[in-house]
Amino acid sequence: MKLATYSDGSRDGQLVVVSRDLRVAHFATGIATRLQQVLDDWNFLSPQLQDLSVTLHQGKARHAFPFEPRQCMAPLPRAYQRADASAYLPHLERLRRAHGATIPASATAGPLIHHGGSDDFLGPWQDAWFGSADWGIDFGAALAVITGDVAMGADAAQGLDGVRLLMLANDWSLRELVPAEQALGFGCVQSKPAAAFGPVAVTPDELGPAWQGGRVHLTLQSAVNGRTVGLNEAGPEMHFHFGALIAHLTRTRNLRAGAIIGSGTVSNQDTGKGFGCIAERRAVAQVEAAEPGAPAAPWLAIGDTVRLEMLGRDGLSVFGAIAQRVAGPQADTPPRATTGPA
Amino acid sequence: MKLATYSDGSRDGQLVVVSRDLRVAHFATGIATRLQQVLDDWNFLSPQLQDLSVTLHQGKARHAFPFEPRQCMAPLPRAYQRADASAYLPHLERLRRAHGATIPASATAGPLIHHGGSDDFLGPWQDAWFGSADWGIDFGAALAVITGDVAMGADAAQGLDGVRLLMLANDWSLRELVPAEQALGFGCVQSKPAAAFGPVAVTPDELGPAWQGGRVHLTLQSAVNGRTVGLNEAGPEMHFHFGALIAHLTRTRNLRAGAIIGSGTVSNQDTGKGFGCIAERRAVAQVEAAEPGAPAAPWLAIGDTVRLEMLGRDGLSVFGAIAQRVAGPQADTPPRATTGPA
Repeated sequence: MKLATYSDGSRDGQLVVVSRDLRVAHFATGIATRLQQVLDDWNFLSPQLQDLSVTLHQGKARHAFPFEPRQCMAPLPRAYQRADASAYLPHLERLRRAHGATIPASATAGPLIHHGGSDDFLGPWQDAWFGSADWGIDFGAALAVITGDVAMGADAAQGLDGVRLLMLANDWSLRELVPAEQALGFGCVQSKPAAAFGPVAVTPDELGPAWQGGRVHLTLQSAVNGRTVGLNEAGPEMHFHFGALIAHLTRTRNLRAGAIIGSGTVSNQDTGKGFGCIAERRAVAQVEAAEPGAPAAPWLAIGDTVRLEMLGRDGLSVFGAIAQRVAGPQADTPPRATTGPA
Repeated sequence: MKLATYSDGSRDGQLVVVSRDLRVAHFATGIATRLQQVLDDWNFLSPQLQDLSVTLHQGKARHAFPFEPRQCMAPLPRAYQRADASAYLPHLERLRRAHGATIPASATAGPLIHHGGSDDFLGPWQDAWFGSADWGIDFGAALAVITGDVAMGADAAQGLDGVRLLMLANDWSLRELVPAEQALGFGCVQSKPAAAFGPVAVTPDELGPAWQGGRVHLTLQSAVNGRTVGLNEAGPEMHFHFGALIAHLTRTRNLRAGAIIGSGTVSNQDTGKGFGCIAERRAVAQVEAAEPGAPAAPWLAIGDTVRLEMLGRDGLSVFGAIAQRVAGPQADTPPRATTGPA
């Protein structure tokens, strides 16, 4: 089942059920108006949405309409919890190396996770607005899960049982603001602005055999200004799977329905697969550069576009595309047109 | 106006309006059922609650009932955003010194803030359950504000305008889990379990002249097992006021209605005022100890009780008391009775 949230001017939008091929949709009115409602009462409401999804695929839904990703807010426009991991070690390694540090032994023993803001997510086609182009604007191609209630002390298997939905995420970072915040040892706040999420959240069964061991075994495509910068395998190199991330979080607390847990930037050891963020590309270029101190690849500029998408083994877009423009006060050129959905 | 949330078995509870002396209350049914609803539509709903509050104080509310803090959940049982500062420098200094570090210059230039979990807050009389007494269980006497919508780029004055409600908080920490998490530079996750909040959230006008310059100029009383451990002045030594904390957060993002911003442990340079957490008491004792390496004051044990309260200049409890028992699996004595509200 695929679920989306249509913008209707309200804070939480309107829940819609979307067909597997993302061509048609149907308002879930009569079952639930908001996704959080469904998460709060999953066992009662999700079978009803599932029934509507079946009817929609049979072409029998009475008020189906063409699905328009540009109408979407984030599937959960705001959430009661968000925690992001750095579950792909090549990403972690490259970023630490760029700052002259090696990865601490403790970082491979348990996952690195930090809480993040969750009151103001961006929709998949919404501009990402930044106050200055000097902040080191970077995208981050990532996956995330939305959980049900998971009790304190859950193990990785119980954590995995708590996964209700999966999403595609663009985890924006302001890289030039990171070092000052990390030096304080309190984690990142200003350097982690509002994240964006793909048009639809999907139940794990939508992934078929690609959902295995708490990992998504598919390729995440990242493009900047229409040029591919990453074709990263999200499965094999996810060092801590989603169940393990959830277990780490629940060591000392409950997780409640609607918590979003992010994977961090999807990354591969093989640099030939490209990168899910600019920071890794810069870090690798730095190492490969004949002359140390050679000018690094630039961060994103106001007006740049970022497009993230993941195709299933059937060739269909799993989550729909995230296609955002970098916006900011220094924009002196008109907004570039973003490319349409596949 | 004072607002509380009665437990009714639902995730968000039932909104009640409470009298200034915390003696009587009235369900807000007909206006709003949940506090988040009011925050989402503050300008329309808060005047209606204010009218009900006036009627309640006139003794004319038709279905008033005695207010019972034990029935309360946190005023916002879950929130879309939580960020906690370390706004009192003596607290920061003592904790850093305990770990052999001095306070970095950058920590006084801007506030230290980290995101925290917000999907599962504890009520004021709810046991705080911990998986192990070896985790360095500590309370944290703090204040917090709930904001309305505050736009990106707000300054401190605009941040202050965004304050809708104030709360008393018990910001639990697991001190023995902190060093390992801080070494990773990603902030605290496992070491910051669910926080608790006092029975009522209050509009700033309830504080009268004690609310000044974004600070609460009143004394925060902390007691462990019935013995006072802190009588801390919350006003003058709050280095960054709430408006400044909000401005720091909004540098790169919007804050949306219902965001909770915490002050961190209230603390004074004068050790004669005692402490709002065990960690500071230990740190000061360490410095004062004739013999280095003398055994430190213990962390909280399973069965211990913590009581936090703040009285107004009229002698009335502003927020009601937080009175929690430390619970855990190793409990081999029956729960101690907690003391009743003032």
